[in-house]
Amino acid sequence: MQDALVFQSDFGLEDGAVSAMYGVAYGVSPTLRIHDLTHGIAPYDVWQASYRLLQTVRYWPAGTVFVSVVDPGVGSARRSVAAKTRDGQCVVTPDNGTLTHLKREYGLAALRGIDERVNRLGGSEESYTFHGRDVYAYTGARLASGAITFEQVGPALDPATAVELPVTPAFAGEGGTVQGTIDVLDIRFGSLWTNVPRALFDGLGIPFGARVEVTIRNATRTLYRNNIVYAHSFADVYVGEPLVYMNSLGRMAVAINQGSFAKAYGIGTGSGWTIAFAPEGAR
Amino acid sequence: MQDALVFQSDFGLEDGAVSAMYGVAYGVSPTLRIHDLTHGIAPYDVWQASYRLLQTVRYWPAGTVFVSVVDPGVGSARRSVAAKTRDGQCVVTPDNGTLTHLKREYGLAALRGIDERVNRLGGSEESYTFHGRDVYAYTGARLASGAITFEQVGPALDPATAVELPVTPAFAGEGGTVQGTIDVLDIRFGSLWTNVPRALFDGLGIPFGARVEVTIRNATRTLYRNNIVYAHSFADVYVGEPLVYMNSLGRMAVAINQGSFAKAYGIGTGSGWTIAFAPEGAR
Amino acid sequence: MQDALVFQSDFGLEDGAVSAMYGVAYGVSPTLRIHDLTHGIAPYDVWQASYRLLQTVRYWPAGTVFVSVVDPGVGSARRSVAAKTRDGQCVVTPDNGTLTHLKREYGLAALRGIDERVNRLGGSEESYTFHGRDVYAYTGARLASGAITFEQVGPALDPATAVELPVTPAFAGEGGTVQGTIDVLDIRFGSLWTNVPRALFDGLGIPFGARVEVTIRNATRTLYRNNIVYAHSFADVYVGEPLVYMNSLGRMAVAINQGSFAKAYGIGTGSGWTIAFAPEGAR
Repeated sequence: MQDALVFQSDFGLEDGAVSAMYGVAYGVSPTLRIHDLTHGIAPYDVWQASYRLLQTVRYWPAGTVFVSVVDPGVGSARRSVAAKTRDGQCVVTPDNGTLTHLKREYGLAALRGIDERVNRLGGSEESYTFHGRDVYAYTGARLASGAITFEQVGPALDPATAVELPVTPAFAGEGGTVQGTIDVLDIRFGSLWTNVPRALFDGLGIPFGARVEVTIRNATRTLYRNNIVYAHSFADVYVGEPLVYMNSLGRMAVAINQGSFAKAYGIGTGSGWTIAFAPEGAR
Repeated sequence: MQDALVFQSDFGLEDGAVSAMYGVAYGVSPTLRIHDLTHGIAPYDVWQASYRLLQTVRYWPAGTVFVSVVDPGVGSARRSVAAKTRDGQCVVTPDNGTLTHLKREYGLAALRGIDERVNRLGGSEESYTFHGRDVYAYTGARLASGAITFEQVGPALDPATAVELPVTPAFAGEGGTVQGTIDVLDIRFGSLWTNVPRALFDGLGIPFGARVEVTIRNATRTLYRNNIVYAHSFADVYVGEPLVYMNSLGRMAVAINQGSFAKAYGIGTGSGWTIAFAPEGAR
Repeated sequence: MQDALVFQSDFGLEDGAVSAMYGVAYGVSPTLRIHDLTHGIAPYDVWQASYRLLQTVRYWPAGTVFVSVVDPGVGSARRSVAAKTRDGQCVVTPDNGTLTHLKREYGLAALRGIDERVNRLGGSEESYTFHGRDVYAYTGARLASGAITFEQVGPALDPATAVELPVTPAFAGEGGTVQGTIDVLDIRFGSLWTNVPRALFDGLGIPFGARVEVTIRNATRTLYRNNIVYAHSFADVYVGEPLVYMNSLGRMAVAINQGSFAKAYGIGTGSGWTIAFAPEGAR
């Protein structure tokens, strides 16, 4: 999709930072169609930024350019890059791990370093702290509008060199269990989104309507261990009842219908938060 | 207005859900003009969603398509519909009460059930929990872009069958009072928006500048009873002074100038929260 | 940039107020390109609104029309105006101080009063509390779309009469110090943005990498006094270490790398919050 530019950051919407990026982009081309993925990424949380790209990029038409700026290393030697996915979307970002999930799940077709000698807002050379505005929004706008080609972003890089955050894959464990991590929350609803794909879970042979033993641990503590019904969706269970279900990305999730599982049991996210699924009564 | 698509939900803006809906819509047509009503509806609060449509739909040009997804019954047998207002705007939504206020206040000109055999994102059949993306955004985009006509949404339904939440109308009570309920808050400013129309209030014969006895009850408790000046707007009273005024929807409201009436007195909203207006000293 | 309309307010995004403004604007012209600066201005905080315009307006193309509605005096005799900056952007706003920073920093080229006999949404004459929708969005949309010229907004006013909030300029103080105020926070990151321009700070002769004595006072209390490294950007210091740097507007700022300086030391903003910079060990 020509002219489509989508911004993501940890800037929030409470001040003028995002709007300054919009203005710079429209200064490049007034025919752009600019939208937001989210600006609510927790400050400096590159993992979350990477996950939100996984959640959305594939739903946008080929040619869409994403600009993702969660940039704790602004002003350091971290690379600035533009990546092209195999489906034809582009992501302009500091190369600090933002591309982790897209690279692992869909693969990167190409990677370019941003040549800041040409792809940087004129007059911003003395500005060291807002590359979102001065480099990324500007370069993304040039790319989305066709002012530059992908190749003109800068020198070709090996896509395999794109920085990846450590990821622990889900796996089938001992004694008929499947184990994974809690990657992220469905924030507003307090649901736990795990890294366990539906196909791996299906190996447990649990039919819809049966119960699943769910165990959640953080480091050495067990925070939850109980049997929960495996449902198609929330409407299959009572209001206030927990459920295991496949989320909108094809991965297993745990929720309370019209409640917050995360708040109810104090569950967090990240590689330290593990979850195990097993058929009820298997042990 | 051709190509105008407006989203509302309880998803918040902190993750990728809204952006995935945008992407699906642009995949239908890159010429759409997509905007948000709000994504800050309290989770599962269908009443609030209905009220926000009342607050905004009429200000948008005929032909605008709204997609409103507050959907606690996702995956249940609740109907998915598209409604056309008498002014020519459309609303695509689960039929769970979202249409309550539009139907009562302006009337629905037509109603169609969504035929998901044709109006559903390809490849999403296994997804049970995100009809906002897979059904509503997709169908709304097809309708807004002209890919389908209103009739092609699906089979005609009787507009009278659109689900309505219970509404208690305001009325003139005994002894020169007008009684109603507190429908919603003007959130940022803590003002109470009632269901009492200006014309009904005018029946009390209270002139601008005179004082109104305001009584607020929740179930059996009286939370507020005092005399407040009836003003054109906030600037007519001191900073920190309460006022009764007509809000931007032509209904009576209660506020504190530059304060929060709701916080000051712990006032909530819904059919359990009643308010009575009477001329000062009438009783 | 023809057709570019940018909204700012203290309305928040939780209800329908902003969307009603969008609808009114599209009713004027369906070809507008409408975006938000922010709607997260603290309620009634005209100073913050003025600062956010300073932060963004210059990054948007000439011809862009901003509509800024932080309007504690709605319904009073405060003027409604449209201002044109020297760079060719316009701001439609109540004249209550919103234009303070743009006027001081860049200068206003022209000022017009809004003639509400022609520039007001039809049928809204009885509405006293939402000029954002009825007057400012409507007039801004007419101006941005070319339905009216800047001159047709209403009668010419002397730009010098635009209301200014009191501003205390930064200055070089006694004994090799530079003193200023803390204007605003970089909200998400808790950084302090001062009114001290880089050039004034440079007069202290402190090189990058050297330490600066920073003193922060509120009224008679000293809340912070310590030596902090002067860095290009966050990446020059350890995580958790404070730094003095030039922010994205060319002014001096104070932060903690990946922490919140404002929260750590309880620092606020406004003319009562002063900051002094001096070379380490100068006293």
